[in-house]
Amino acid sequence: MGIAQPQYIFGIDGGGTGCRVAICDASGKRIGEASGGPANYSTDSIGTIANVQAAVSRLAAAHSISPDDLAKSTARVGLAGILTDADATAMADALPFKRSIVSDDRETSLAGALGDANGILAAIGTGTFVAARSAETTRFFGGWGLHLSDQASGAWLGRKALRRTVLAHDGLASHSDLTQALLERTKDLTGMVAFAKDATPADYGSLARSVIQAAASGDANGLHIVKEGAAYLNACLNAVTLEGEDVICLTGGIGPHYEPYLETVFRDRVRPALGTALDGALRLAQQAFNKMEKAP
Amino acid sequence: MGIAQPQYIFGIDGGGTGCRVAICDASGKRIGEASGGPANYSTDSIGTIANVQAAVSRLAAAHSISPDDLAKSTARVGLAGILTDADATAMADALPFKRSIVSDDRETSLAGALGDANGILAAIGTGTFVAARSAETTRFFGGWGLHLSDQASGAWLGRKALRRTVLAHDGLASHSDLTQALLERTKDLTGMVAFAKDATPADYGSLARSVIQAAASGDANGLHIVKEGAAYLNACLNAVTLEGEDVICLTGGIGPHYEPYLETVFRDRVRPALGTALDGALRLAQQAFNKMEKAP
Repeated sequence: MGIAQPQYIFGIDGGGTGCRVAICDASGKRIGEASGGPANYSTDSIGTIANVQAAVSRLAAAHSISPDDLAKSTARVGLAGILTDADATAMADALPFKRSIVSDDRETSLAGALGDANGILAAIGTGTFVAARSAETTRFFGGWGLHLSDQASGAWLGRKALRRTVLAHDGLASHSDLTQALLERTKDLTGMVAFAKDATPADYGSLARSVIQAAASGDANGLHIVKEGAAYLNACLNAVTLEGEDVICLTGGIGPHYEPYLETVFRDRVRPALGTALDGALRLAQQAFNKMEKAP
Repeated sequence: MGIAQPQYIFGIDGGGTGCRVAICDASGKRIGEASGGPANYSTDSIGTIANVQAAVSRLAAAHSISPDDLAKSTARVGLAGILTDADATAMADALPFKRSIVSDDRETSLAGALGDANGILAAIGTGTFVAARSAETTRFFGGWGLHLSDQASGAWLGRKALRRTVLAHDGLASHSDLTQALLERTKDLTGMVAFAKDATPADYGSLARSVIQAAASGDANGLHIVKEGAAYLNACLNAVTLEGEDVICLTGGIGPHYEPYLETVFRDRVRPALGTALDGALRLAQQAFNKMEKAP
């Protein structure tokens, strides 16, 4: 093996609101952590590369890790918006490590939430994906963005509430406190249409909390929308065979709020996540490092 | 009344694919027609003004109508994307006529389809709106754009079909010829996500015909989607009280295809539209002209 040299293991997690980097040493001891700017690769690949590089450099500098040592290190990177092998390769090539394994953030989130156990992660923030790990395979649902998927997500809840408001305005649904409040927020329907014209998923997501609160207080439109989101989640859960001690983790800013609306058989399996997607990235990085060390 | 001078009446219709201008003289005789570039005011107000002005100038030149005569003329203008009074005023101010009455294209479309009769127009092209005229009032449904409304529209059908394809890919719906064909068209789900990232309503609408054809040939996913669109239309029709000889007109590239999916009581009232939105604009312009002539 030659002379023992410092070897570091990096876990990196990123999405539309920011990125985070954590390091541990070869013994698995966690050394430090840094955060940086937005890192959704499909929204802004150049900014994502720059923000992740900057966070890595800052963390390396804070712990006096030299470029030489970085060049010997291993990293596991999970970023929102990594859609193709070409994306993953371009991102890996932009990092200073000996070995960078890059994917979207679904596998790292799953590893963070469940560790090595089997079960299901429903990660529901601005977007939504569901991951189900069994002895044989890992199966994913959704995560393809608001245009084509992301049912039950914060952005989906917010946009559904605006659509419900239009239906109520047109007399095809009944108004409630929720739809009245949304209409007042934009003054009138014209203001709402103007908002929607340029609204990002994050803009729609900013309305999600009021939808969840409305549902919790019995508002008919709020309940209608949240139950439709829950129906999607229940459909995902029903598409999977749960066994033994399999747990269900609801994460993200919105996920835990769905627990009361899940079918009883699923509610009984809900447990807190073991850790975050950053923890998952670091965990997978350690596994990759150990595997590499054991290789001839 | 002074010396009789030539007075002209203009009808103008515009939307995302183009604009059209028609003239008649004070006796109601139709003189000519011209078409021009896109005229959706909310998408591109400057281009809309320029395209409508150019079409008017071209038509005036072709019929040797002088600027002086234009300045004595009356126009009724119906343009997609006129959302506020400020939009209507700005558009009217940009036209060379003595009097320009500007609105979105819902009233002109209704006047074109029904003439003076009562009944319902379901105008379904890339977007959708429904207008119901009774003795007392005219009621509108939808027409607020794909983000918040436009159920049953061509854009809505196309996007629904892509969403259904994602559900089938994830194992939450069954694939059919329609969803398989859509997946092949973009090679894989990543290609479909890339298409949706920047897709305009017109882009989604380009898929609508294949959805309608799939439904007509019994494809389960095509039927599921078209029936959901029809459910929205039936809900609009059920929200209105139809009387006596009230007719229902289904217009636009998509509208007529919904006839087989309407409730029987509505199907029995379906009749061809009397005319186009341009005919309606000219009709309303004549009415405004006659009213003005009779005024003291």
